[in-house]
Amino acid sequence: MSHPHPELGAPPELPADGLRVIALGGLGEIGRNMTVFEHAGKLLVVDCGVLFPEDHQPGVDLILPDFAPIRDRLDDIVAIVLTHGHEDHIGGVPYLLRERGDIPLVGSKLTLALVDSKLREHRLKDVPKYVVAEDETLAMEPFDLEFVAVNHSIPDALAVAIRTAAGLVIHTGDFKMDQLPLDGRITDLRAFARLGEAGVDLFLTDSTNADVPGFTTTERDISPVLDRVFAQSQQRIITACFASHVHRVQQILDAAVKHGRKVAYIGRSMIRNMQIARDLGYLHVPDGVIVDGRKVSEYRPEELVLVSTGSQGEPMAALSRIAANSHDSVRIEPGDTVVLASSLIPGNENAVYRVIDGLIRLGARVVHKGNALVHVSGHASAGELLYCYNIVKPSNVMPVHGEMRHLHANAALARATGVEADRVVIAEDGFVVDLVDGRARVTGKVDCGYVYVDGSSVGDITESELKDRRILGEEGFVSVIVVIDSSTGKLVSGPEIQARGFAEDDSVFQAVVPQVEQALANAVADGTYDTHQLQQVIRRTVGRWVSGAHRRRPMIVPVVLEA
Amino acid sequence: MSHPHPELGAPPELPADGLRVIALGGLGEIGRNMTVFEHAGKLLVVDCGVLFPEDHQPGVDLILPDFAPIRDRLDDIVAIVLTHGHEDHIGGVPYLLRERGDIPLVGSKLTLALVDSKLREHRLKDVPKYVVAEDETLAMEPFDLEFVAVNHSIPDALAVAIRTAAGLVIHTGDFKMDQLPLDGRITDLRAFARLGEAGVDLFLTDSTNADVPGFTTTERDISPVLDRVFAQSQQRIITACFASHVHRVQQILDAAVKHGRKVAYIGRSMIRNMQIARDLGYLHVPDGVIVDGRKVSEYRPEELVLVSTGSQGEPMAALSRIAANSHDSVRIEPGDTVVLASSLIPGNENAVYRVIDGLIRLGARVVHKGNALVHVSGHASAGELLYCYNIVKPSNVMPVHGEMRHLHANAALARATGVEADRVVIAEDGFVVDLVDGRARVTGKVDCGYVYVDGSSVGDITESELKDRRILGEEGFVSVIVVIDSSTGKLVSGPEIQARGFAEDDSVFQAVVPQVEQALANAVADGTYDTHQLQQVIRRTVGRWVSGAHRRRPMIVPVVLEA
Repeated sequence: MSHPHPELGAPPELPADGLRVIALGGLGEIGRNMTVFEHAGKLLVVDCGVLFPEDHQPGVDLILPDFAPIRDRLDDIVAIVLTHGHEDHIGGVPYLLRERGDIPLVGSKLTLALVDSKLREHRLKDVPKYVVAEDETLAMEPFDLEFVAVNHSIPDALAVAIRTAAGLVIHTGDFKMDQLPLDGRITDLRAFARLGEAGVDLFLTDSTNADVPGFTTTERDISPVLDRVFAQSQQRIITACFASHVHRVQQILDAAVKHGRKVAYIGRSMIRNMQIARDLGYLHVPDGVIVDGRKVSEYRPEELVLVSTGSQGEPMAALSRIAANSHDSVRIEPGDTVVLASSLIPGNENAVYRVIDGLIRLGARVVHKGNALVHVSGHASAGELLYCYNIVKPSNVMPVHGEMRHLHANAALARATGVEADRVVIAEDGFVVDLVDGRARVTGKVDCGYVYVDGSSVGDITESELKDRRILGEEGFVSVIVVIDSSTGKLVSGPEIQARGFAEDDSVFQAVVPQVEQALANAVADGTYDTHQLQQVIRRTVGRWVSGAHRRRPMIVPVVLEA
Repeated sequence: MSHPHPELGAPPELPADGLRVIALGGLGEIGRNMTVFEHAGKLLVVDCGVLFPEDHQPGVDLILPDFAPIRDRLDDIVAIVLTHGHEDHIGGVPYLLRERGDIPLVGSKLTLALVDSKLREHRLKDVPKYVVAEDETLAMEPFDLEFVAVNHSIPDALAVAIRTAAGLVIHTGDFKMDQLPLDGRITDLRAFARLGEAGVDLFLTDSTNADVPGFTTTERDISPVLDRVFAQSQQRIITACFASHVHRVQQILDAAVKHGRKVAYIGRSMIRNMQIARDLGYLHVPDGVIVDGRKVSEYRPEELVLVSTGSQGEPMAALSRIAANSHDSVRIEPGDTVVLASSLIPGNENAVYRVIDGLIRLGARVVHKGNALVHVSGHASAGELLYCYNIVKPSNVMPVHGEMRHLHANAALARATGVEADRVVIAEDGFVVDLVDGRARVTGKVDCGYVYVDGSSVGDITESELKDRRILGEEGFVSVIVVIDSSTGKLVSGPEIQARGFAEDDSVFQAVVPQVEQALANAVADGTYDTHQLQQVIRRTVGRWVSGAHRRRPMIVPVVLEA
């Protein structure tokens, strides 16, 4: 896709007192957030997350930010600041640390604890870490950092203020402004106001919900809904939510305790994260409430609440297997209750509805965000962003974290509060934004693509491989193998035809075999012995036949061997 | 997936005065609606639609109802009644007619006109047709039919009342109850009341929006929104909606005329359907308003409104190409307006948001159902269904048209109005529902699967082929070819390894080649010459290596040729 800055080239040299900002992910997409700040020859990275693939990226496990633009400057990185512990902000850290293992990590207690379990998985040791909290400062020369509490759908999230000779920058990370959060830890607008009074030169703000009018409902409003659902249930209750949503799980725990039920966690990440959250004091669990998920069958259904992963319809998660009536130990009985206390991420609709329909078919009552207030977003809506802009009164604004419609909606909010239109910078991944003399401008662009993780390989999958996969997935392949005598070009064996995913009986190929034999004989008679050319002959012959006779376009894989 | 009637087997013999109802599609899914009624040895089919495939059905063009349960009784079919002209109600007709070409079609004027263009495509001639209108009756022995006007998102939709010795049945087709429709043609509740007074024994009702509370907004409310959008635009306006939504196009036309713009249709189905609708008097177009879509470049952008297909983000449709800045003749300029006056069908979110983001990136203002009232549903919401049940007061209810959550929600509405719980029949495709002595019951089940259309083949794709495609699409394949001496088993040529979509450089296979050679030599030394067994040896060797060394599970395709 072309972009509205087709003229952008390599950026100019950064003035000594300038600050450069390049997002390597998160602009034009929801995920793989990563912003690189450059000043006085040094780099500061804020977040390093992953993006989950869409249908047109089949078989891909994860998508990383492209580290190429900073690969030859890894030694200049003074730190990676992690605003909070969600995958789209921390998931890429191990991959960046693989390239330089001693980059210091900076983040809150919970954030770094969640990163730790990743580092162990990737066998990364001796990574320097700085645990910080709101209101604290940290000098990472030439960047002076100050941390500000923000409220989000995971505890202990931080915004970061970055002071350099170029001015004062605030990066909000993900945030919302719940005024009555469960843990009382609100987004610190007094700190935003104080920084605003000092003069914020550039404000990078979360755009995820910028196109949602009004205000995000308080998390607390979910509690009475859960209470009512639990009160109505005399049978099994299964709840599902994100494995990092500590406050949501807290509300489920509280409801379970109130209604005399014990709780079992289902799913590896749920068990691990809730253990971390409890150990660090973010989750408050009365003794004796949690029971081992492997011992669910020792309890009567009405004695338990299961807290499961799988709220996005992930096919291998427990909830999907329960919905398909194929789970080892949990069977739905008519009258059971399932609560999907979670968002529905665009793209997951079919999978989630498949789970809901499966559960309903088995007789369950399914409570979800479509029919009850059992989920609220973790991001500031338009109304909250307006408050933010009016309190901070930034000189320049750069919307981050969002697809184009979110970035543009956020930019419109900034302009509506009086930020000058030409100081609201809409950038995409790889755009170079320079803050010089108090003014932010797009000054260039660096190459910046998608880096795919698949199995054990990182970055080996190209767009062309993905295109192959799409063709294979939609049309299958037809492989045509012949063995020829290397001196005469005569057929020694074959044509042997193998097809998969082509969806016709193999016997149909009998029709094309004589055509292939004839085409090869003609080519050899014309003096063509080269295996590459003979492969082209086969490809053309079979391709023409298959498109005419079957109106299909499978991948044709000709193989000519010499014997 | 197991179902709550695991005990269901072949149905009992149908009593002479009984009516049998079997849905071959549309129950448990939105699409491929087809209901078969049987009485006195004859069959009446209501609707015969297609279902569009999901991600887990890659490469499939369409999914048909399974005709297998009626294949040996095609001669017993007295007619196919088509309630309206949407693809999910008429798209399967040519495929059923391929099996018996003289089944009479019954439907309204517009419905049959839309079917006609399909029949021409499939070269089906001399199909008997009965054009019917609301309030008319038609005897198709032993079924006495009466047609009732219903309002939907396409003109000229009909519900059908079916009288037999077994009682009176109403099938609503798709409908809603817009009380102020553009064409004044409301769902005829007086007819429903009259039939209800006579006693409706079985009421089959559209479930699509049964889980949506309240009432569907009137189509008319879109008009002032379009008016405002058009008034604000001084540049190009592009609108997109379904190619069958005549009333939506009428509103766009009216707004265009009011604001002094001409209109060009973009997209083959839009051009064709609007021509039919105009010719038959369903679309009212002042002379000189429509201009040829190929001559768009002869007009200034502010003189035109384009009316395009592609509202669901279909990649080949004009709108997607415009959003990707790759359309031949239409380029978006900053300040242009695009209106998606359409629903967002679950599963299409990523594709639609990709289009919206692309348009915004190019500077367009995008108006869609997420930010303005530019779409209303074509289906009755819960509030409307309650009215229906209270007016008809049916003895038995069978929710149709919907996934499980919709059918269950509709059933709950019927029960809430006083229909006895055991007379609300929730059936799935293939369930046999018998109406005997005024009582409807599930009495059995017939086998009934998915029939896939792909290219020129119908029904040749199996679930196992689709599984192959999913593996190929996600992991690619590795083909390993060897030629052996048929007498000694010694390698003559190969192993030649070909991989696609596997996403590693081909050079990695050098590591496994000696392992394959060794494994084959060992097998031959143990006396194994059989090509099938040698293929298994290759499959195991390469499969183990690829999973260990690359953490992948591509399809392994071993080929052993003898020379």
